[in-house]
Amino acid sequence: MSRLTEDARGVYVIAATPFQEDGTLDFDSTDRMVDTYLEKGAAGLTVLGMMGEATKLTPDEARRFVQHFLTRVDGRIPVVVGVSSPGFAQMQELTKTVMGDGAGGVMIAPPSTLKTDDQIVNYYNQAVEFIGDTPFVLQDFPLVTNIHMSVSVIARIIRSLPSCVCLKHEDWPGLEKISTLREQGVLDRRISILCGNGGLFLPEEMARGADGAMTGFCCPEMMFDVVREMEAGNTERAYDVLNAYLPLMRYEQQPGLGLAVRKYVMAKRGVIASDTLRQPGARLGVTARAEIDQLLRRQGERLAELG
Amino acid sequence: MSRLTEDARGVYVIAATPFQEDGTLDFDSTDRMVDTYLEKGAAGLTVLGMMGEATKLTPDEARRFVQHFLTRVDGRIPVVVGVSSPGFAQMQELTKTVMGDGAGGVMIAPPSTLKTDDQIVNYYNQAVEFIGDTPFVLQDFPLVTNIHMSVSVIARIIRSLPSCVCLKHEDWPGLEKISTLREQGVLDRRISILCGNGGLFLPEEMARGADGAMTGFCCPEMMFDVVREMEAGNTERAYDVLNAYLPLMRYEQQPGLGLAVRKYVMAKRGVIASDTLRQPGARLGVTARAEIDQLLRRQGERLAELG
Amino acid sequence: MSRLTEDARGVYVIAATPFQEDGTLDFDSTDRMVDTYLEKGAAGLTVLGMMGEATKLTPDEARRFVQHFLTRVDGRIPVVVGVSSPGFAQMQELTKTVMGDGAGGVMIAPPSTLKTDDQIVNYYNQAVEFIGDTPFVLQDFPLVTNIHMSVSVIARIIRSLPSCVCLKHEDWPGLEKISTLREQGVLDRRISILCGNGGLFLPEEMARGADGAMTGFCCPEMMFDVVREMEAGNTERAYDVLNAYLPLMRYEQQPGLGLAVRKYVMAKRGVIASDTLRQPGARLGVTARAEIDQLLRRQGERLAELG
Amino acid sequence: MSRLTEDARGVYVIAATPFQEDGTLDFDSTDRMVDTYLEKGAAGLTVLGMMGEATKLTPDEARRFVQHFLTRVDGRIPVVVGVSSPGFAQMQELTKTVMGDGAGGVMIAPPSTLKTDDQIVNYYNQAVEFIGDTPFVLQDFPLVTNIHMSVSVIARIIRSLPSCVCLKHEDWPGLEKISTLREQGVLDRRISILCGNGGLFLPEEMARGADGAMTGFCCPEMMFDVVREMEAGNTERAYDVLNAYLPLMRYEQQPGLGLAVRKYVMAKRGVIASDTLRQPGARLGVTARAEIDQLLRRQGERLAELG
Repeated sequence: MSRLTEDARGVYVIAATPFQEDGTLDFDSTDRMVDTYLEKGAAGLTVLGMMGEATKLTPDEARRFVQHFLTRVDGRIPVVVGVSSPGFAQMQELTKTVMGDGAGGVMIAPPSTLKTDDQIVNYYNQAVEFIGDTPFVLQDFPLVTNIHMSVSVIARIIRSLPSCVCLKHEDWPGLEKISTLREQGVLDRRISILCGNGGLFLPEEMARGADGAMTGFCCPEMMFDVVREMEAGNTERAYDVLNAYLPLMRYEQQPGLGLAVRKYVMAKRGVIASDTLRQPGARLGVTARAEIDQLLRRQGERLAELG
Repeated sequence: MSRLTEDARGVYVIAATPFQEDGTLDFDSTDRMVDTYLEKGAAGLTVLGMMGEATKLTPDEARRFVQHFLTRVDGRIPVVVGVSSPGFAQMQELTKTVMGDGAGGVMIAPPSTLKTDDQIVNYYNQAVEFIGDTPFVLQDFPLVTNIHMSVSVIARIIRSLPSCVCLKHEDWPGLEKISTLREQGVLDRRISILCGNGGLFLPEEMARGADGAMTGFCCPEMMFDVVREMEAGNTERAYDVLNAYLPLMRYEQQPGLGLAVRKYVMAKRGVIASDTLRQPGARLGVTARAEIDQLLRRQGERLAELG
Repeated sequence: MSRLTEDARGVYVIAATPFQEDGTLDFDSTDRMVDTYLEKGAAGLTVLGMMGEATKLTPDEARRFVQHFLTRVDGRIPVVVGVSSPGFAQMQELTKTVMGDGAGGVMIAPPSTLKTDDQIVNYYNQAVEFIGDTPFVLQDFPLVTNIHMSVSVIARIIRSLPSCVCLKHEDWPGLEKISTLREQGVLDRRISILCGNGGLFLPEEMARGADGAMTGFCCPEMMFDVVREMEAGNTERAYDVLNAYLPLMRYEQQPGLGLAVRKYVMAKRGVIASDTLRQPGARLGVTARAEIDQLLRRQGERLAELG
Repeated sequence: MSRLTEDARGVYVIAATPFQEDGTLDFDSTDRMVDTYLEKGAAGLTVLGMMGEATKLTPDEARRFVQHFLTRVDGRIPVVVGVSSPGFAQMQELTKTVMGDGAGGVMIAPPSTLKTDDQIVNYYNQAVEFIGDTPFVLQDFPLVTNIHMSVSVIARIIRSLPSCVCLKHEDWPGLEKISTLREQGVLDRRISILCGNGGLFLPEEMARGADGAMTGFCCPEMMFDVVREMEAGNTERAYDVLNAYLPLMRYEQQPGLGLAVRKYVMAKRGVIASDTLRQPGARLGVTARAEIDQLLRRQGERLAELG
């Protein structure tokens, strides 16, 4: 087992949940997907995230999927499991199960019922009463959760909860927020900041103090390359890479459509066997597929130009 | 087993989930609660509703609770089980389990992600592909779901899905909606309409065509009495009864506080052993308890006056 | 002119905007309405509130209506004017105009775009840069604004802005909030707390430390009587009065319908000439009118019983 | 005067509202901005849109700004004025004023209070009772309005209201929606479809049947060029252009920050004198300015490569 710590950096890929054509879990594709991410250089992996169709699994399926996933990763890199639940009893049980199976930490998003700064801080304090000292990722994703965490709320959570080791930063806009979080004295200890939003602002985020990305994109090599170039100080090269992928990133960022785009490209590349989504959720239409094919062709040409 | 049908009428009490002081499920109190509702004249019962702390149970606890509950009811009246889930796989599994255990039907609320009339209709059509011909209650509760179902949406669902046998009407305001739904030609068949909102508008709702109530209130005899008087044509008496309970109903209707009020009164009356709520959720403070005690005293006096 | 201060207490009635049958402003009815409130014992009046159809007036109409209203009141009691605007330039201009015409203060609700505690506090600080030392009412009405102000946010606003003299308390549930705000040391100075929600919890609110009500109800004598009895220590009598009106209060509280109910009753009582609402907004249907007539009849009988 | 019709095509630039350093309206910059748009090839212009700080103007300022703007355009191209208002009386008055001053049409967004398909259709029918036969743009922008208009709702509005001549399409994702709206038989007459979202999907939107763009971007020549190339059938060239601007477009698309970015670039280019925003709203910080400068430099280099 590899445990998530405050030193997490690099790319944590948020993994999709592969299904066979008939909608059942596809463990062969899961293995291939895990192997691909490991080969390409993932620093960590995240499962049962919001994009991963976690809510479309039965509790038993979710458990079997995570177990299989963890077995394949085999402790080589930390695996973060999304455990956000409507109640703490469920969160506690799921956390216990996945940590026992070898997860490196869990991720918790705030429920949309929270109304004030105090309620947000209080919620995380209550959660930790249930999950104990399990390392956890604080998920800051207001576009989906509708919960806006100010810098002072994040600082209060980090101060009171030593097991909060990482911020999944997905506020939008959020560049100034990263800068502020990295200012001297704002947080009383340094935690890892990994960014979301499909990597759309990854160079700027790294320059402002992020440690990497925790997000998904159908061509994850973009994230590995951008992070590597930024860490090496090659800002111009990092932007060259980002910009080559940007037309497709823009396309995948369409709300509600992103996962279908990601699975279509992953299937086309042979990583997963089928681009099946469980209902509600549908595969792409003919025109959308043609648009993506064109974007992929142009992307390949642009990358070839860059060398 | 007693199956839910379009002829459902009277009071379907939404049952709370009793916990012991330490937060574990309290099956003795559950039995006493079920017995009380049956003695007083419940036409049906509903479990795992939104107010029932269903989301605070683990999947295994939810299953055991429903199983115990159904065993105690023993088919004497229909039991409706809330099966709203973020995904259809979960909804399907839960429905299969509870119907196998003897439930009379299920209740489905629309997820808050639905955006248009067509999406709402489509959602229920998809759900029925998963739950088959299980009789279901269409839950119309915009204050909580944030989904507003127009009369034409309800009519489309009823037209295309014969297993939709009951509308849990909890729009607010919703009196005109009941009148419209009962107009000749609006629905192509008559289904049961049972009303929510704690019974706050029960006399008006019955007069406009509702068949009864499906809701909770700490003193359920209010609902039994109002429905009985309205069915007997004693409108003045029905209002006399309602008005005697109204000060306490008003108090229990406070959003976010209602369940604590209900459990406090149920425990005070000896129906359940403890007014414990699972986190997040807290028992009432001292002043609130004193306010309720006073309301109960005055309520008793007023009921004595009425005779 | 009568200026709003931290000592405000009693009932501040939120006034409707009377229209003639053809939808034009009805100044005769406005005069009659003002006179009625003054006779019955209003401690203050509020115009251009959320319920007052303020947004359905042109800027010029709003100005003329307030001017006429203020002239009729003639400085005998403070008049509060709602000046919430999407921009500070508008708020500044409207405040300057109405204060020049003799208003006693203004009321400001937070815009629904605010996301965190800091943003709320910041918004009020910015507003005061534009309205100067005009006394203002802090409007806490989350059901409509979707902004939840914690006690600590309210405390910060009161600490930094001496011109904040009154809290219009309309959180729901909000009883514990009043108790907390009145605890020693929570606020660094005492301001007036006037409650909303149609007076539905007025006895409990007064007992917990509120100074009165700032809200509307079609039979405002209920508020005058309840406040008077509570101030005199006659809690039982206060509840007797409240309970007599409660069936109708419940009816008027229906969201989106309340103003139509209020205008119907005010017109029936001869206070205003017509129950016309501007679009969007419609008069009540036949059944609703009959329901209200019945509630009024029973209310009269109950009040006669009480003597 | 140039009137908006169903044949509208090309780029309608949404104009910012230029302020001087002290926050007062800057008419010289307004003239320069209008002249720039006309020279570069705008087919139309839109003022008082959501991005234009319209809500931060007093009613009098808004009127003077539109009047000045219309005088400068002098009927050479249609000018669309945003007239969305909380009430119909205001909408009617503003429409009458701007049409009298020479506007070509108005734009109306649905208020966020609408709940069902029927309510949306009804709202536009009511609006037209107030604005008469003024040509209007139907604004479909769910990310901001929170109102989701299905294709069938749009079809119903177009069928019943002949003065609806244009759809400002800003749903996201919205590509399939454009395809559906252009299918034979979906709409009973062809209206103009102009797209928003900063032009982020402009090539795909044009390919699926849009007639152009109605949106803003700090470098509007991107929109002119992409639309021209797509109309000429040069898809590859259109994508080359789009992709060159995409890194900056991505940056300007950050919610809540976009207008500050746009004004900063416009001021840097000499189109407007100052990048001042009215409160609430702030200029960019030092790091953000440096990020944009870098994006502009790289953008210039990429455009030079393309020739």
